[in-house]
Amino acid sequence: MTIMYDGKGYSGFQVQPNGKTIQGEIERALTLLFKKDIKIYASGRTDAGVSALAQVAHFDLEEKIDEKKLKSSLNAKLDGIAITKIVQADGSFDARFNVKRKTYQYLFYVSRDELPLYSGRAVRINDYADIKLMNEACKFLIGKHDFKSFVARKSGKTDFVRTIFDAKIVSLIGDIYALEITGDGFLYNMVRIIFGTLVNIGYGKLPPEKMADIIRAEDRKFAGKTYPAEALYLKNVAYSDENKKKL
Amino acid sequence: MTIMYDGKGYSGFQVQPNGKTIQGEIERALTLLFKKDIKIYASGRTDAGVSALAQVAHFDLEEKIDEKKLKSSLNAKLDGIAITKIVQADGSFDARFNVKRKTYQYLFYVSRDELPLYSGRAVRINDYADIKLMNEACKFLIGKHDFKSFVARKSGKTDFVRTIFDAKIVSLIGDIYALEITGDGFLYNMVRIIFGTLVNIGYGKLPPEKMADIIRAEDRKFAGKTYPAEALYLKNVAYSDENKKKL
Repeated sequence: MTIMYDGKGYSGFQVQPNGKTIQGEIERALTLLFKKDIKIYASGRTDAGVSALAQVAHFDLEEKIDEKKLKSSLNAKLDGIAITKIVQADGSFDARFNVKRKTYQYLFYVSRDELPLYSGRAVRINDYADIKLMNEACKFLIGKHDFKSFVARKSGKTDFVRTIFDAKIVSLIGDIYALEITGDGFLYNMVRIIFGTLVNIGYGKLPPEKMADIIRAEDRKFAGKTYPAEALYLKNVAYSDENKKKL
Repeated sequence: MTIMYDGKGYSGFQVQPNGKTIQGEIERALTLLFKKDIKIYASGRTDAGVSALAQVAHFDLEEKIDEKKLKSSLNAKLDGIAITKIVQADGSFDARFNVKRKTYQYLFYVSRDELPLYSGRAVRINDYADIKLMNEACKFLIGKHDFKSFVARKSGKTDFVRTIFDAKIVSLIGDIYALEITGDGFLYNMVRIIFGTLVNIGYGKLPPEKMADIIRAEDRKFAGKTYPAEALYLKNVAYSDENKKKL
């Protein structure tokens, strides 16, 4: 299943003891429909406040289903979450372990003042930010690196090596831009910390090539601040061509 | 001044006895700052729930001002409204009477289900809508016509002749589109009724060339339903080159 959701009002994707979660709501709807406990397995969790344009998850069912009918029935039971696609996959498909690439977008606008139409959806950065410098710095992110400098200290992980296939600032509409970043996986808060570092570079506090040094340092203290979750969107999850055929 | 606002939570632009209005809030902020009553004059009113990317208004002041400082002071006093520009105009400039063209955007997305990220910002139309047919129908709107078929019955106006310079469906991002329409002026609910008519054409209920007949009929009953205000945005107000020089 492909899922779009508005992260606002949810305590993140993953089920937890307290708070409404995306996974919890979808499992509740599936369990109501099939009258038995059904668990879903997503490409990965997203943090509290993070939205998704196209998260992917799988679940196991023995019975044959009408995908379109199931999609409509589920959507009727969900709020702030929409199932945009359901297809039957091969039994070997695993939404988490077969992921090849994920793309995140971090939305921002460039203005001296808060702009009401973007509030809660994109973050503001000051109008003296130089987008060209930010774009130059993005190039240093591409490749296989240890991203320990860009992970929240409370992350329990020990392996910080990830491969970034693409990273760039794209112009969307008007004064709205996005950091668009594609990799084989991302660490806790990684995109939000990368964005904070890019803003420092955009403001001229650091030259773009300093990004390479910050990566090499493998120390959180050299990177920028963690920007808010509300502007982060999981845009796409890609699987191998073999998986695609099954989907 | 150029003004961006989120129409949600406001009873429209124009000051009225009950309810918070855009004009009311800006005049309150100006009056607080200058310690005297100041009125603003906008390019035109927008209805309750309608937003603006760039509304234009003028006000008269005897004292010299620092435009940037005034902009910041005003923005600090406003919520859901941002003054994005203040420039000193020639004394003869009138934000209402010198308008040459206005552009509105009506945002919609094409999907079988409600999509949470667009809710309250764009309206949904069904995925069997044919955007090409809608675009063909737009062409019949261009020119000088009597638009009586596209005005709310309660409008007090008697002159329904307006010139439409451009009308088209543009693709924005992903599955989001906009009806973008530019004219010398618009009647009450006109864009929202035109959009309702275009949706009927997109759904194949009427052929695109029927738009010409509906215009000629000069009767509200032949046009489509009035779509909601929340997806309508005043995108731009243009003045003559002479005025531009002054701005």
